[in-house]
Amino acid sequence: MRALVLKDQLSFDPDYPAPAPAPGEAIVRVTRAGICNTDLELVKGYMGFRGIPGHEFVGVLEETGERVVAEINCVGPGSPSRDWRERSQDPGRDTLGIDRRDGAFAEWVRVPLANLHRVPGAVSDDEAAFVEPLAAACQILEQVPIRPTDRARVLGDGKLGLLCAQVLATTGCDLLALGKHPDKLAILERRGIRTALAADWSGARDADVVVEATGSPAGFDLARRMLRPRGTLVLKSTFAGLTPADLTGVVVDEIAVIGSRCGPFDAALRLLERKQVDVLPLICARYPLEQGLQAFARARAPGALKVLMDISPF
Amino acid sequence: MRALVLKDQLSFDPDYPAPAPAPGEAIVRVTRAGICNTDLELVKGYMGFRGIPGHEFVGVLEETGERVVAEINCVGPGSPSRDWRERSQDPGRDTLGIDRRDGAFAEWVRVPLANLHRVPGAVSDDEAAFVEPLAAACQILEQVPIRPTDRARVLGDGKLGLLCAQVLATTGCDLLALGKHPDKLAILERRGIRTALAADWSGARDADVVVEATGSPAGFDLARRMLRPRGTLVLKSTFAGLTPADLTGVVVDEIAVIGSRCGPFDAALRLLERKQVDVLPLICARYPLEQGLQAFARARAPGALKVLMDISPF
Repeated sequence: MRALVLKDQLSFDPDYPAPAPAPGEAIVRVTRAGICNTDLELVKGYMGFRGIPGHEFVGVLEETGERVVAEINCVGPGSPSRDWRERSQDPGRDTLGIDRRDGAFAEWVRVPLANLHRVPGAVSDDEAAFVEPLAAACQILEQVPIRPTDRARVLGDGKLGLLCAQVLATTGCDLLALGKHPDKLAILERRGIRTALAADWSGARDADVVVEATGSPAGFDLARRMLRPRGTLVLKSTFAGLTPADLTGVVVDEIAVIGSRCGPFDAALRLLERKQVDVLPLICARYPLEQGLQAFARARAPGALKVLMDISPF
Repeated sequence: MRALVLKDQLSFDPDYPAPAPAPGEAIVRVTRAGICNTDLELVKGYMGFRGIPGHEFVGVLEETGERVVAEINCVGPGSPSRDWRERSQDPGRDTLGIDRRDGAFAEWVRVPLANLHRVPGAVSDDEAAFVEPLAAACQILEQVPIRPTDRARVLGDGKLGLLCAQVLATTGCDLLALGKHPDKLAILERRGIRTALAADWSGARDADVVVEATGSPAGFDLARRMLRPRGTLVLKSTFAGLTPADLTGVVVDEIAVIGSRCGPFDAALRLLERKQVDVLPLICARYPLEQGLQAFARARAPGALKVLMDISPF
């Protein structure tokens, strides 16, 4: 089959072996897949991953014609993990396109049946390709109760930041999204979400919750300083390397720092079905699978948002 | 009055001006005071403090003869802060012997009436001198529910670590205290608390809660790696400078990091009154106020635990 394969570097392979069905697993024909920052990090060596990357996708179950998306954390039939919450932290998990399991930048991908979610008719393929990162944004609300009166701030206007801001906006909280790119923040402004340039921050330390989604070590300290005492800092950024962090400030202000990763697919699908979020303005380019290297180059370019790959249009 | 005073350096002053009473405040005659690591940091320049240090003390209200201890976070009569919890994070607070308010290494100290707590007869002066740090240890249980089945770990066998371990032991949880000094850990062993050398840690990442009380930047990463996914890391250490922290690890494991500082005096007094903790074995030396510089030198020496100053014995 056609696939993008990461060995020493990323390349297009027109003849990669198609996955064989295994007990308890399905073969999904991939229709659309999105490039995530994690994919760019994998190419740089993160996780030491070798194989087919790609973990944001929608596809079709050949036998039934059903459209499906799939959670990325996979456990074997012997695991005690019974739901997505347990699977996403199962110590024996492998992770689609990230850790020891081929992903979705290919014609076919093998996925545990338990990981599949049917895509409602009202959700397009382009929208469904966002379910994985949108679920990660929903995870914030699984972990931190956001009250209607809370001052919430989302720091970072990349792909994940824009999704986090839209998810937090569903709560009706006092929301401000902060970033560096007026054109990206405008996507939120058009949804009625208040935005500002991070450089224009007043210095007021009054936020109840700050979501750090800058993807950069510098985001932590700015997020921390925006919080009121006993506020909550939700960390979404992952990157290689350490962050020089003022942990004494965390103690003095009694801040709660909450690491937040994968989230609930069913909630993300509901938000898309009910049009409570709009992911389509995040698409900045699309390429066929054969032009995967160009797609990655585009995703790496300054100012890029979501780059999609059209894999099996039919 | 006699006092230890920090200007460019710490010195004993036999003739420092005694504090004048102010509305809503009391003058307390100090009987016993303890040296905290924060005091050692102040002498090194932390907080830029100038004045009389000392924030762990017990004393007497001259008019009534009552023995009292006092919370250290002080707010003016115009503050909306109504209880210790609010006072301890009030943005307008000053802090006894730490931030813009003279402390207790002196014959007399001026304290807001609202900050005073009467010491029960069953609690000795030596014990009462530990109420402030013991309250800080109690704050862990205010912030993080510890269940009887939880695997809790306390990392650090200094003064605060030994108090934290004793407070966590009151819950009946599966507790292990880890440190570097067999003689300090022995204080806990004699109380029936299981201990181990941190260097002997098995590598098992199975703790539900880890309290980081090492006072050193290196404690953060070890504490983090002891936790199970979605575990809770309670930070008690404060020190100057930044910690190179693996925040991506916090995200991937979805860990909650909780900064924890001052705590409830009433709870600490109850624990002492009921003999649920034993602070006396932590006393390693005592000096009269006149020998305050020697007392500080002793507190700085390797292996030291709590150094007390006998100020106004009568």
